[in-house]
This record gives sequence, C-alpha cells and structure tokens, in this order.
Amino acid sequence: MKIAKTISSVRKLVQQARTEGKSVGLVPTMGALHQGHISLIEEAAKKTDFVVVSIFVNPTQFGPKEDFKKYPRPLQNDLKLCRRADADVVFAPSAKEMYPQENLTWVSVKKLSEPLCGRSRPGHFRGVITVCSKLFNIVQPDVAFFGQKDAQQTVVIKQMVADLNIPLKIVVCPTVRQSDGLALSSRNQYLSPRERRDAACLYRSLQKCRQMVADGIKETKRIVAQMRKIITAAASAKIEYIEIVDAKTLQPIKKVDRPTLVALAVRIGQTRLIDNILIDAQK
Amino acid sequence: MKIAKTISSVRKLVQQARTEGKSVGLVPTMGALHQGHISLIEEAAKKTDFVVVSIFVNPTQFGPKEDFKKYPRPLQNDLKLCRRADADVVFAPSAKEMYPQENLTWVSVKKLSEPLCGRSRPGHFRGVITVCSKLFNIVQPDVAFFGQKDAQQTVVIKQMVADLNIPLKIVVCPTVRQSDGLALSSRNQYLSPRERRDAACLYRSLQKCRQMVADGIKETKRIVAQMRKIITAAASAKIEYIEIVDAKTLQPIKKVDRPTLVALAVRIGQTRLIDNILIDAQK
Repeated sequence: MKIAKTISSVRKLVQQARTEGKSVGLVPTMGALHQGHISLIEEAAKKTDFVVVSIFVNPTQFGPKEDFKKYPRPLQNDLKLCRRADADVVFAPSAKEMYPQENLTWVSVKKLSEPLCGRSRPGHFRGVITVCSKLFNIVQPDVAFFGQKDAQQTVVIKQMVADLNIPLKIVVCPTVRQSDGLALSSRNQYLSPRERRDAACLYRSLQKCRQMVADGIKETKRIVAQMRKIITAAASAKIEYIEIVDAKTLQPIKKVDRPTLVALAVRIGQTRLIDNILIDAQK
Repeated sequence: MKIAKTISSVRKLVQQARTEGKSVGLVPTMGALHQGHISLIEEAAKKTDFVVVSIFVNPTQFGPKEDFKKYPRPLQNDLKLCRRADADVVFAPSAKEMYPQENLTWVSVKKLSEPLCGRSRPGHFRGVITVCSKLFNIVQPDVAFFGQKDAQQTVVIKQMVADLNIPLKIVVCPTVRQSDGLALSSRNQYLSPRERRDAACLYRSLQKCRQMVADGIKETKRIVAQMRKIITAAASAKIEYIEIVDAKTLQPIKKVDRPTLVALAVRIGQTRLIDNILIDAQK
C-alpha cells in the first residue's frame, strides 16, 4: 500500500493504475477509521481494481464552534487498518496541500442541504460538497463509496454528481452498528461509559419507528412522539431533531407512504450523534 | 466533423479520441460565432489533437430581464464555421439535455464574481461557472480556450479550476477587433448603423487609457475621467462602469502600478457591450 501526501503523487499512482486498465474506487474519509469505514474499503476492493482511501479532516465543513481541533487523527492506526482492508493508496494531504490559497470557489446544493443537519450546521454541506468535488477531480475515480449513516450527505452528493455531470458512480453502504445498535462513528470515542450506554437510545427509537410502521401506523406525528419518549428517557440525551422525511426530497411528510428517511440528531452530553433508517413504504 | 446533441454521444467521441492517444481541447461558446470564436477554435486546433466546440445558450447565466430569448442562434451557420475552422466535434445540447431536472447544484466563486459585471448581473458568473463545470465534466478536456474579451470570466474560471483541482489548462486568447477597434461580440448585431458607429467609443477610451499610462500618468481617477469623456461624447452610449483594477484580485486600484485590468461596460442604445485591456505596469 502506497501513502500519498500530495495531489501530484496520488494522481501519478492513479494514472499508473489506469494505464494498467484498472478501475478506480475512492473512499473519502476524515480518518479515525472504524468498522464502518472498513466496510466501505472492503466494498471498494470488491467493486473496483484500485482503491484510494482519502484521509483528510476537512476544515471547511466544521462550524466555528464545532470539534475540528479535537477531531481524532490517529493516522498510524488508520494506515494499519487501510493496509489490512486491502487499500492500494492512502491519500493523506495536509490542509495546505488541499487549500494552498484562500478558497474562493464553493459548490453548494440548494434545498437538500437546508433541512435536517443543514439547519444546525450552516455551511457544513457546502464544505463537504466542495471538498468532495476536489477529491473527485484529484482522484477521478469510477466509483466513490459513502456510508448510509450520513444519509443527508449521500443524498446531497448524489445530487451534485448528477447536476454537474461528474462521470462517477456513488455507492452507499449500510450503516455498521455495535451490538446494542449504536451506529459506529469516530465521535463515539468522545462518550463517557455512562453516555455510551445512553447513546443506544438513538437506534432504539429508530427500531420503534420501524416496528410502528410494520404495525400499520403511518402518521409521522404519532411515530415521532414515541421516538421522542425513548430518547428523552436517556438522562444525557438532548434531541436536536427527529424527522421523518421523503427519502428523495428530504421534505417532511405526514404519512409514511413512500420511500422514507427517518433521521435524527441527538446530543449525548457534549457529543452530537446522528443516525437514520430508510423505510421502503408504499401508498 | 461530428455533431453531438447528447452528453453520452459527445463522451463516446471524446473517449474514442482518447483511445487514439489524442489530447482534447474544448472551446465553450454560446454560438452566434464570429472571428473571435474562430480564433479560439484555431488556437485549440493548434494546441490539441481533438477539438470540441460546445454551442449552448446557457439559460442559467442570463438574468430575468436579459436577452436570453432574443440571443441569436444561427446553428447552421455556426456549424459551417466550425467545420471550416477544423473542429472535430460540435456539442450542441438542448436545455433539457443539460438541465434534465431542477438544477440544485451551483458552483460559485466569491469575491472575484462580485465587482465589475457581477454588480449589474447578479447570478451571471454563478451560471457561467456552473455550466463550465458541467462542460468540463462532460468533455474532460486537457485544455479549454476562452477569450480575453470576457476578462472577468477568465479570472473567475481560472480560480475555479485551481480551487477545485480540475485537471485542465485554461488558455486565454486575445480579443479580436474590427478595423475601428470594436471588440467582436455576438451582441454587436443588435446595433443599428448609428449605434455601430458610436460603439467604437469603448475601444477609443481604452486606447486613451493605454496612451496616458504610456505617457507616465498613473492616477486611475484622472484616467477614468478622460475615458468617461470619450464615451459620453457618443450620443447613444450610457456608461455602466469604467474600472481600473488589479488584474488578479479585480479590486480597484488608485495607481496603475502593477498588472492592471481596465474594463468597462457600456450600453449602446439597448445593447450592453463590454471591453477591456490588460496593462502590464510595474511600480
């Protein structure tokens, strides 16, 4: 496995793979890799011949009061995990390499960036989409792999790829969970043992939702009320949002009568966690 | 010369050229081609092996009160000119092909899009940059060719290409002028004979500027006053702006003591014309 710190070096490695007729997969990450990322890398290794994992804690997607500085950066361990998962290249640029001058160009996706996490994290998706544009232009992969855990991110990026005619396929892989259902996240390590136990309430509430829909209950208001109950029962939990929305438009719906995204953001102590499920409902 | 109406067909043609080891040049236009465009195509034919000319009157770069509907679309004549200039492909998509669904994704360049034409045409550069992003992703050229006449556009696009790491070289070709100095523009055909004579005042004022600088006059205020005089002497002319700015930042300067852009927009009757010169001054 090669490690590329510069844009020109990762381009050379990809170029080389191209001349060997290989297809190229990209797994964009911010490092602090866990089994969720690993599943993306393994999927990339299945679907493409040459797998690039980017590790870059992108400053432009963090708000001024967010955890950019304290975000974990265990690069040596990340490299070990990438090697084990059969990545071909890790692209780990510095901030200076990615933003050598004041960045004036922004890619933004209207409407889809605005609800859910967009409401409490203004500028977040603009930062994500812009850095993904850059990574796509640097690596020029055939396929890029994202996790379902960041549901809104996958919707926004798919829209960007379609609107800008980027010659690239987006593959979304299932959320990987711990045994109590907690979705893996690099931010879980911020949790105290007490908070870690409380954090299972996110998935418990999502399961409750799935059960209610299976039982024929379609009114989102009623479902959200039940989900809210489960989460507020956890002492350290503070709900940012619980929303049931159209899976394509991300607009709120009154009844679960179409492909539906059930998404929530909850603070467990100081740590902001998100989770979601898709429900493939019909009228 | 091939004519491609769809994204998939132009991609196939470019792909084919690539497998033959050819380099690819793109000349993005809105059609109504004149000798200025032809000079870009000829330059592209010199510098690259396979030349794609795009002809697309991009709705998203026109304001609601601008001339989108009446913008000339003489496609048959354009094709003849492209053939004669040795283009390999004309990509002439429909609006539906370029924007098959509501476009939610926008690429914008802060700061550089704001002064000069950005002030009177809000959203114009966002539209230009977004459609150029799309064209770059569709054709994936090695080099794209733009005219110096649209000076701010060239600065904005170069910034976008650098910021987003688009693997592409931008070549800017000199403005082509008629014998009285009027810069060629598809909009010149809107002018009445009387207005056509008046329109020469744009370049006369730019020449005056160049002469004053050559004579050692550096104060931009003094220069602009003289330029203003020349233009207001033309009966049908109404100045939108005359600005002397840093050629890189597009910020106003007090003295012509660095690489400088002298740019102006003038209405001749109902027709908005722009022109500019670069002055390579030093402290």
